Amino acid sequence: MDTAATGPLPDAALDQLFRNARTHNGFNPDPIPDTALRAIYELVKWAPTTANSQPLRVLFIKSRAAKERLRAALSSGNRDKTMAAPATAILAYDLEFFEKLPRTFAHNQEARSWFAGQPALIETTALRNSSIQGGYFIMAARALGYDCGPMSGFDNAKVDAEFFPDRRIKSNFLCNLGHGDWSKVMPRNERLTFDETCEIL
Amino acid sequence: MDTAATGPLPDAALDQLFRNARTHNGFNPDPIPDTALRAIYELVKWAPTTANSQPLRVLFIKSRAAKERLRAALSSGNRDKTMAAPATAILAYDLEFFEKLPRTFAHNQEARSWFAGQPALIETTALRNSSIQGGYFIMAARALGYDCGPMSGFDNAKVDAEFFPDRRIKSNFLCNLGHGDWSKVMPRNERLTFDETCEIL
Repeated sequence: MDTAATGPLPDAALDQLFRNARTHNGFNPDPIPDTALRAIYELVKWAPTTANSQPLRVLFIKSRAAKERLRAALSSGNRDKTMAAPATAILAYDLEFFEKLPRTFAHNQEARSWFAGQPALIETTALRNSSIQGGYFIMAARALGYDCGPMSGFDNAKVDAEFFPDRRIKSNFLCNLGHGDWSKVMPRNERLTFDETCEIL
Repeated sequence: MDTAATGPLPDAALDQLFRNARTHNGFNPDPIPDTALRAIYELVKWAPTTANSQPLRVLFIKSRAAKERLRAALSSGNRDKTMAAPATAILAYDLEFFEKLPRTFAHNQEARSWFAGQPALIETTALRNSSIQGGYFIMAARALGYDCGPMSGFDNAKVDAEFFPDRRIKSNFLCNLGHGDWSKVMPRNERLTFDETCEIL
């Protein structure tokens, strides 16, 4: 393990991850290989979650048949672009994530009991941490040279009924993946400034 | 804007962001400059959120006086390391985020009405997106060469009462920031595999 002090990444990397990256509405039609989807997860998995709880679950929708199962859950504005994307990740969370804590937080065998039988805490922890992992996911895809089209505009209940009928897994958000078509990127919307969102005390 | 196709970042960058980065419990005591805290936000702000809603708010706790206001809200296992960290970010969310949509999602002036008067949707959207932005925040800090010590182990209600008494802003999680002391890093916990968390359809 490299434990040396780190400095800032080169500007080109910061551009690729944050400054020049955009939400994509169209993609090069070439398929995205399964190895690329695995490579994204193999980065995401290392980044931190509450008590190493890792509630994120991902269903990668690549095949035509699986895309058709997703169609009815998509909002009208997101339907065509999602049906055409090389892959659509359903980022979801496992409401039984805490059952794995005796293995993944092995130095404290009480961790499971912090959550068991507490549905509100389970839901909040799963939503919070699968969303944090969703942020890592977008960064990991971009770090590997892929473009993302994340969206909340879909019917979560329909996705859950179709793909997660046992009610243990709940959908969080969707993310189209591929190599973006820059001609279909929208003008960039305004960002809030540091001074209206942050304060240093 | 560079709209050229991107490839994977160099291995050293992937190591710094994901593979070698660790949750830090101790930090070099040197102060972290305000310019570095601003630089983190100037990356985070570009990454995507639902309808460009940007609900994340950040209070950076740097001064001794502000740290003392935080002390009582910290869990016993997180207290000493947080009091000693060069800065502690309180990552929070604004329950009135939708009031800014007429400016930040200007091409659709109906966006504000999707949320107004719907407290459950507001809460879920704010928690989801401020958490996604929390994932971006950790990646941005690492990309700039800083180390993170994120934690959920604190009393959210006490933080909110002390720092956000108007009840509009709610704390999400905390993140210590600085240059990490690698001698205080814990053994790495097990990560879930691709095959137990992901599926390709």
